[in-house]
Formats: sequence, structure tokens, C-alpha cells
Amino acid sequence: MSDPAIVTLMTDFGERDSYVGCMKGVILSTDPSIRIVDISHEVPAFNLMSASYLLSTYYSLFPRGTVHIVIVDPGVGGARDALAVEAGGWYFVLPDNGIATMTIEEFGGKHTARRIENPSLMRNGVSATFHGRDVFAPAAARLASGFPFDAVGPVAARIERLQASVPVVAERHISGAVVHIDSFGNHITNIAGRLLERYDGSTLLVQIGSFTIIGLSRTFSDRKPGELVAYVGSAGRLEIAVSRASAVGTVGLAVGAEVNVRGRLRG
Amino acid sequence: MSDPAIVTLMTDFGERDSYVGCMKGVILSTDPSIRIVDISHEVPAFNLMSASYLLSTYYSLFPRGTVHIVIVDPGVGGARDALAVEAGGWYFVLPDNGIATMTIEEFGGKHTARRIENPSLMRNGVSATFHGRDVFAPAAARLASGFPFDAVGPVAARIERLQASVPVVAERHISGAVVHIDSFGNHITNIAGRLLERYDGSTLLVQIGSFTIIGLSRTFSDRKPGELVAYVGSAGRLEIAVSRASAVGTVGLAVGAEVNVRGRLRG
Amino acid sequence: MSDPAIVTLMTDFGERDSYVGCMKGVILSTDPSIRIVDISHEVPAFNLMSASYLLSTYYSLFPRGTVHIVIVDPGVGGARDALAVEAGGWYFVLPDNGIATMTIEEFGGKHTARRIENPSLMRNGVSATFHGRDVFAPAAARLASGFPFDAVGPVAARIERLQASVPVVAERHISGAVVHIDSFGNHITNIAGRLLERYDGSTLLVQIGSFTIIGLSRTFSDRKPGELVAYVGSAGRLEIAVSRASAVGTVGLAVGAEVNVRGRLRG
Repeated sequence: MSDPAIVTLMTDFGERDSYVGCMKGVILSTDPSIRIVDISHEVPAFNLMSASYLLSTYYSLFPRGTVHIVIVDPGVGGARDALAVEAGGWYFVLPDNGIATMTIEEFGGKHTARRIENPSLMRNGVSATFHGRDVFAPAAARLASGFPFDAVGPVAARIERLQASVPVVAERHISGAVVHIDSFGNHITNIAGRLLERYDGSTLLVQIGSFTIIGLSRTFSDRKPGELVAYVGSAGRLEIAVSRASAVGTVGLAVGAEVNVRGRLRG
Repeated sequence: MSDPAIVTLMTDFGERDSYVGCMKGVILSTDPSIRIVDISHEVPAFNLMSASYLLSTYYSLFPRGTVHIVIVDPGVGGARDALAVEAGGWYFVLPDNGIATMTIEEFGGKHTARRIENPSLMRNGVSATFHGRDVFAPAAARLASGFPFDAVGPVAARIERLQASVPVVAERHISGAVVHIDSFGNHITNIAGRLLERYDGSTLLVQIGSFTIIGLSRTFSDRKPGELVAYVGSAGRLEIAVSRASAVGTVGLAVGAEVNVRGRLRG
Repeated sequence: MSDPAIVTLMTDFGERDSYVGCMKGVILSTDPSIRIVDISHEVPAFNLMSASYLLSTYYSLFPRGTVHIVIVDPGVGGARDALAVEAGGWYFVLPDNGIATMTIEEFGGKHTARRIENPSLMRNGVSATFHGRDVFAPAAARLASGFPFDAVGPVAARIERLQASVPVVAERHISGAVVHIDSFGNHITNIAGRLLERYDGSTLLVQIGSFTIIGLSRTFSDRKPGELVAYVGSAGRLEIAVSRASAVGTVGLAVGAEVNVRGRLRG
């Protein structure tokens, strides 16, 4: 028996309604053997940067061929396209609003995006407001079941990108941004840990808002309780936290806030 | 290999406890091949109308033969019956408190309800307070695995119905109610979109609380941000929302609130 | 076809992030046929006693051979061990911080614990902060897929236990504690219902904080709305609730609060 097809689901639909349940029904009616995996349905509402970051943390931990649905879609009912994207052997089914940005960057931008326009991939009578049920779920289920990617629709030559997703790296200085604040209050940035290797870690200065953190720690518990700490987190990116507490009240900033790094370069 | 049996789960048990996990264990111990699908465990607590509405949105998107468990059960520990209901080829396992109302209406009331009384469908030593684990989960798992519906227990000639679930349709006027408020703040009514087709849409007046909305829009984003908007939503029912915001603070009403519709009839 | 392997997941990771999704990816990349079952990801943060109690309510409802992952881990990044524990035919993969206590007690303490030290059970480059993805998920997936328990690592002769998990039973008096407060506000204690059988139920006095409840009820709805009630709940333990309301505001105590029982012994 071959391995089961896998479809993952990440949305900002919340847990109180049946929107996610409707999508699962459409997927299983298309192919009852598909393995559906919930990632999260509590992604911060309408926060494209958080969604883009989160997708980049899990997509590659699933087997190649997995179809990842991500729906954070402030533009539903408007004119944005629905996309199926292939990169590195994984598939992504999502609105064309930049959510795929941080994932595609991991392939140096290499990807193929197609607009979902083949009517056989949609439910009859697509609603104005629930493309999750009527477009994304059936298209993902068909792709997972072997529908040829080439037949999804025309290639989208240019897709939306989020601007703030890549840090600016100068000779001695890096200027980045907070891309997600997790439920523990950790502030995750777009600054990859390998970019910090050029500095002498003990001289590193990380500046966020009115705070400056001196030195890079190994983990968030390396400082005294209540102190701000900078470290490379489990996603391989610079994070800012408060040891044994949430940094949300202390830092007082949101996703998108600027983070600056400087220090003495290694000899 | 035949298609796997599917059991869906919707409850108001919340996400902090192990109640849902206990039910999943019972189902998989009955038959490890069953596909368990989470719909929601954050249904507004004890809100039978919301649960009835939500069930009606997803049950038919699953393959026929699916067993849908719904537990919102203010009467647990009291005298209400536990039911297995068949309608249209789908099965529903739920307390006899009206949750099935809006689904059964879609079949013109046609259904067969049986009281779950066959002891082989229950765990030994049924507790007074956790029928989800001791009655609903094992009965649903057995049904999904091929246990004959006829042997569940005696036919329940009359089951509970929710009164406010059907709108009153007069010659020029429709009087309905809010049946669910979703996590985006959209107020969903029991008024089917097809009931509005007799009106000239631009003359439609939708009254809720102290507000009157003039005209039917195509979607919730068709008005200026912050304005109230009436439209037929993805479930095919009249909804009232605030464009690009939540209507909860604006409208200030709860599930059950009256909604009235009038307008000029088409020529 | 043999029954699918089952891995359950209970964490305090919350629902807003991709931490749980990352773990699921690692499990399915190890063996795509594994059935993953979500128990809860909203366990009260860092509350080891609640986690220990909750695990004891569901583990045995799953088929023997199931691997239960539980991660509530205030000590991540520190020196605590990662454990795989076998008891009664079920497996438990969790940090060595006492979470397994109430489950192991059900086997009179009989269990085998091994430290997860075999590098083939871990991801390359284990992070300092995300052992769920890098240690617990791959180890559990391998165990579920038939990896020999004996090869996990050396036996841990002594594992952490939570002290307050067992009540003190005197000649006429029992002194116990609240081990979990569920989302309905019910206060669940570590006092097993069978310990109460020696008393004449109508003379039972249950004391918590400044309140004394007289008599044991059959269920939480046996008293007038708003009254405190003591009963043996669905987990077979003494619970304290307020009839048809949450007891949280009334009782005003937290997990760990002392609960005392006395009464006239049966003749």
C-alpha cells in the first residue's frame, strides 16, 4: 500500500465555528483516504507576516508531496487570485497575498505558481466569501490525490511578496523586523542565526524599541528571571524574550517592529 | 480496501481538558481504523441554536454514511434521551435536545430517530456526567463500523425541536432570528437566501434591534468599512455584518434576536 | 492489514503557533501511517499536576501499544531528562518532571522508565528549546513504529514524582488536594471515589478553603442552582462544583488547594 496523501490546514478561522469542519468534509468527500493534519486555526487574524513565518517553520518537516493549505485572507470577496505553488517538492494552496514569501525565499525564490482556474477543482456555485470550502479545499484534495499540477491553471508569472520579510545586511549592521510573537511572548525576527556568526557573540547589541540587549545567549532561560534575552531560537532565527515570562508587556511592540543588530566582527 | 469509516466530533467541551481525548480513545479502541474528524470543541457553551445551525452547515459535505457526534448537553445527568438519528444517509449521535432540528428540516422533517438503549453500545458502568465517553462515543463508533441502525434501540416517535429555528413568512414580510454569531462577528439568521428572491433586492429592508439596513449586498465587503451590511452568506442564509470589522459591539444582540425583512415584491 | 500505530499529543503549546504542527510533520515523516490524535494543546501552562491528572483520565481508553506524548516542560533548556516509560502495555514519552505520577500510581508504581539517549531517536542538531520537535516526536514515532523499547536508552532507576498527588488517609479522615480545575469550573481532587465508600454518604463533610459541603451527591446537578456540591465525577474522583455554574469565582482557590473529608463510618 502506498503512503497516504497528506493535506495540512492552517487558518485564522478560529475554533468556534464550522468553517474548518466544512473544509474537512470537502476534502474527505473528494478522497476519503487523505490524511488531514491540523496545524493551527488561531493564527493571528489577518496577520500575513505571522502566517508567512509560521508556514516556513513546518512545511519541510512533512514528507515531500504534502499539500499545505494556508488561509489568512483579508481579500476574500475581492480580486486576489487563488494559487497553487510548488517549491522543493512540496505544494502550497493559498490566496495570492504574500503568505508564501518566507518559504519561497528558502529556495532562493525558485518556485512555480499557478492560478487555480480549472473549474473541475472547484465546487459548483463558488460563494463570494468562503473560498476555503469552495476553492482551496477541493483543489488541495485533488492535488494530493494525484491531479496533475500542470492542469491547475495558467502560470502566475509574478506573485505577491511581503516586503519586510528579508533583513537588510550592511557591513557591520543588520536591520530586521519582528515577524511573529508566539503564545509564550517570544518575539521572533526575520534575522537568520547564521547571519550572526560573523560577530563576536559577547559584543552583540540587539536593539528593539527603546531596549538594547547586550550579548547573545544560548536559550531564553540563560538570563535571570524577568531580564530581556536575545538568542537563536528553534526556527534558526534571532528571538527576543524575557526569561521565564512573556516579553509582550515589556517590549510593547507588534509584528513588523524594527530590530537592529551590531557588534564587533570576528577577527 | 473499502473507504474508512468517518466519525466527526463537535462539542462545547473546550480545549483545556481531556474530555475530547477520552472520547477519541473509546472510538479507536472500538475500531482503530475509524477516521476521527474534529469539527469544533469551542461551540458556545450550552447554546443549542448555534450547535443546530453549525451542524446544518457541514454534515452533508462529508460522505454519506459518516456518523456525526454533536454534544452540547445542558441536560446531562437528567432524563433526556440519547439519540441516533438517520436522515438522508448520514447518521447523527446526540442528546435529544433539539440540536438536530435545522438539519432535519432540510429533509422536510423526514428522518428516523432511535433511542440508544442497546447496552452493547455503551461502556460498562455509565457515569452520571460523561455520556460523551460512555454512550455517544461507543455508539457512534459501533454505528460507523457497521452495527445495524435498527438494533440501536426503539424508534423515538417524537424528538425535541427548537422553536425559533424556522422563520415566519407572511405575504410581504419575513420574521426570523439570529441563529449563530461567528468568530468574525457575523450574525447568521435562519432566513434562507431563496426566500429573498421574491423581493427587488435594492428595496430590501433588514431590521435588527434598532438598526435598519437598506438593500442586499453581494458580500460583507461591499459597503464602506464600519457600515452594517446584509448579504446571503456562504451557508445560503441571510447574514448581517459590519464591513471589515466585527458586528458584535455595534449590534449588541445575542443568538435568538429577532430579524425582520420587508421590501417591494418583484413585478 | 494490522491496526495502525497511534500517537497521542497533549501539550501546553497553545493553538496560535506552529509548534504542534512541527511535531506532527516529524511524526509523519518518520512513518506516514501513524494515526496522530490531538488530546489538548491548552493544558494550563506549566501546570504539572493538571497534566498528570489529565493523562491519567485518557491513556487507558486507547488500545494497548499507543504512545502518549505529554509536554508540559518548564525545564526545557535545563538538565531534566527526556523519558520513555512503559506501564501496563502503554507507552509515555515525556520530560522527567513528574507528569507520569498519577498514571504510574494506577499500576502500584510498577513501570519501566528509560532515558531517551539513543541518537537515532533524535533529529540532527537538537535545539535548546524545542525538544518536542527534536526529541519527543521522533522518539514517539519510532516507538509506535516498532522500535524496541529496550534500545531507547538506559533504565532510569528513579524518576520524578509529584508529592501532592496522593491523599493521606487516616482512620476517619482523608486529606487530599485539588489536582485540576476543568473548563466548566469543576474542581477535581486526588481522592478516589472508592475511598469514600467507608462513610455513610449523607454524613460526609467535604471541606475546601472556608467552605464545608454536607453530603455526597450523585451528580453536579443534584443541588439547587448556585449551591456547592460534592460528588464522584466521571474520572472516579471526588469533585467539587457549583450546580449549573462555574465554581471558580465561588471557591477562589487554585490547583494544589487542600481538600479534607470526614464523616460517620458505616456500621
